[in-house]
Amino acid sequence: MDRSVETVFPGTTASDQISREELQLAARNHGMPLEALRYAVTPLGLHYLLIHYDVPAVDPAAWRLVVDGRVERGLVLSLDELRERPSVTHRVTMECAGNGRARQTPRALSQPWLLEAVGTAEWTGTPLRPLLEEAGLEESAVELVFSGLDRGIEGGVEQRYQRSLPVGEAFGDHVLLAWEVNGQPLPPQHGFPLRLVVAGWYGMASVKWLARITAVEAGFRGYQQVQAYRYRQHPDEAGVPVSRIAPRSLMVPPGIPEFISRRRFVPLGPCRLEGRAWSGWGTIVEVQVSADGGGEWTPAELDPPSGPHAWRRWSLTWEPEAPGDYQLCCRATDETGRSQPLEPRWNLGGYAGTEVQRVEVTVARGMQA
Amino acid sequence: MDRSVETVFPGTTASDQISREELQLAARNHGMPLEALRYAVTPLGLHYLLIHYDVPAVDPAAWRLVVDGRVERGLVLSLDELRERPSVTHRVTMECAGNGRARQTPRALSQPWLLEAVGTAEWTGTPLRPLLEEAGLEESAVELVFSGLDRGIEGGVEQRYQRSLPVGEAFGDHVLLAWEVNGQPLPPQHGFPLRLVVAGWYGMASVKWLARITAVEAGFRGYQQVQAYRYRQHPDEAGVPVSRIAPRSLMVPPGIPEFISRRRFVPLGPCRLEGRAWSGWGTIVEVQVSADGGGEWTPAELDPPSGPHAWRRWSLTWEPEAPGDYQLCCRATDETGRSQPLEPRWNLGGYAGTEVQRVEVTVARGMQA
Repeated sequence: MDRSVETVFPGTTASDQISREELQLAARNHGMPLEALRYAVTPLGLHYLLIHYDVPAVDPAAWRLVVDGRVERGLVLSLDELRERPSVTHRVTMECAGNGRARQTPRALSQPWLLEAVGTAEWTGTPLRPLLEEAGLEESAVELVFSGLDRGIEGGVEQRYQRSLPVGEAFGDHVLLAWEVNGQPLPPQHGFPLRLVVAGWYGMASVKWLARITAVEAGFRGYQQVQAYRYRQHPDEAGVPVSRIAPRSLMVPPGIPEFISRRRFVPLGPCRLEGRAWSGWGTIVEVQVSADGGGEWTPAELDPPSGPHAWRRWSLTWEPEAPGDYQLCCRATDETGRSQPLEPRWNLGGYAGTEVQRVEVTVARGMQA
Repeated sequence: MDRSVETVFPGTTASDQISREELQLAARNHGMPLEALRYAVTPLGLHYLLIHYDVPAVDPAAWRLVVDGRVERGLVLSLDELRERPSVTHRVTMECAGNGRARQTPRALSQPWLLEAVGTAEWTGTPLRPLLEEAGLEESAVELVFSGLDRGIEGGVEQRYQRSLPVGEAFGDHVLLAWEVNGQPLPPQHGFPLRLVVAGWYGMASVKWLARITAVEAGFRGYQQVQAYRYRQHPDEAGVPVSRIAPRSLMVPPGIPEFISRRRFVPLGPCRLEGRAWSGWGTIVEVQVSADGGGEWTPAELDPPSGPHAWRRWSLTWEPEAPGDYQLCCRATDETGRSQPLEPRWNLGGYAGTEVQRVEVTVARGMQA
């Protein structure tokens, strides 16, 4: 009897190597190089990008946002009509739910993220709530289904990318219909002409190329809602839906890299470490740093929070006593007490793999500072 | 005796799988999703990105461009002083020399590009030639060495990224010092505050984060000049330097993708194929398309050239006669007669792997058009 992990858990692999299929995804989807953690707002083009299917070609003149389903007054809005509505700007740290997946064993066969699937952007648009109030939800409405224009086949199902939110969540102040990012019109890859932005949630909730919002009277059963984006230990479980972002901290890898291994080399002497930490559950209240792989921990200094939905900067001066090899780690805790595990907590889809980052560093004499 | 390819050719692998080290590079460096071939100018954030070391942090107020070495008058220029000089805008198709590397067997252990390492941008800056004339090259000068601010270790050598050009090449109209891309200030990842742009050459020549131009009286022997970026069959060879871009054509993969395999599904009926083709050696004069993996070829329609340094659009209506599996290929030829091979032409570094693209397509009845 074949007891390999691929048989017991279809769609996973125990290989330490990456398959051709995973490479195809990694070649399309963009991570944020970790030195970009130095920017409070991620420059356009460095924010992570996960595109399930293709970036669709959208004619903005023909495009409309339709609000329908269990509403009293269906709406059909052009981009100009949306832009005439009151606008706000939210600074939002967004992360892919699969960030860290490629560190897990076995891992789901999907986009093989290591740690780079994150970014912070300033999204400008109009709050969703007044628009829903204008449409008038019927009492039977329990969820809003958001449909994008991106189409593909996944899990054997031909589909548009669709995700839902409970009515209570959709009415929150953290939910925006955005047409600008970092002060510029949305580029195609971020959802032009309109993107839902659900601050605090993993990126799968922030539907790109948004075309339709449908109020429904039963929980949405679409592929991305009930098959994908579930915390499961076994394929037979219904699982727990993925929602808000679990706390994570990452550091700017110090020193200079070796090209292939990405190992870091740092000159002997005081070394300023810095990074960012975030959580979709509440404010980050502590970041600790270890230089010995998680044995001893030292609290880092925290900058003031940079908004309710954005990452928080931390820094610390590290003074290695001697040349040699070190493993640097950082660990964040938020105000709800949620923190990062030291070891992976496995799940079938490879979601929220927030075990601490480990940066291999060689401290050397005689390097240029 | 160990006769494995890794022993005969150190730094290569014959594995069909991708190593952790390669994944680390693929997670940092960005490919252009191929549907972005639909844009004549690649939107910011979709252009390919290859960063050898880290994106450096540069203070534009303190930054200076130094011109020194075998010149009559050394120059030290601020960004403002550069921006006061006459400016031009070039539309340039840029490609990484390693594009296609991961399709080769065995392959060099480096950034594992499939086909996405390309993009076209509009670079604005000042031509290099008048600046060199102002400095006045001494008669002994044979090359210009361009030094970036990005630092790392590669091939055991601690280095800044440096590349040279022969004097004759550096004086060409196709060489620019750019401070804007697509009408915006250079973002950090494209070389802020200043980038050398050498149109027609593979991207390794277009040094980012440019800080120094040094006229030298002997051929530059830096790592990126004599170790990397050489066409070699064996490590002991001196090899032939990589320079201009060999012709290539790519298509927008038609229809919709399956998420993991990226196989394309197309409804039965006429299907408009489109793509772009380019060469650093001359104008593209022909693109041919095959729907049977390279058996029969049909000429595509070519749009007018979009400038001396930019890709050329092609299109063709394909009418599959029946449902089933097809392999689509395209092949470009430039005015010098250079064309794309059908099979890989192997070299040690995995450079210029321009064998034709092969897109697996399933034509199906009953799909949404």
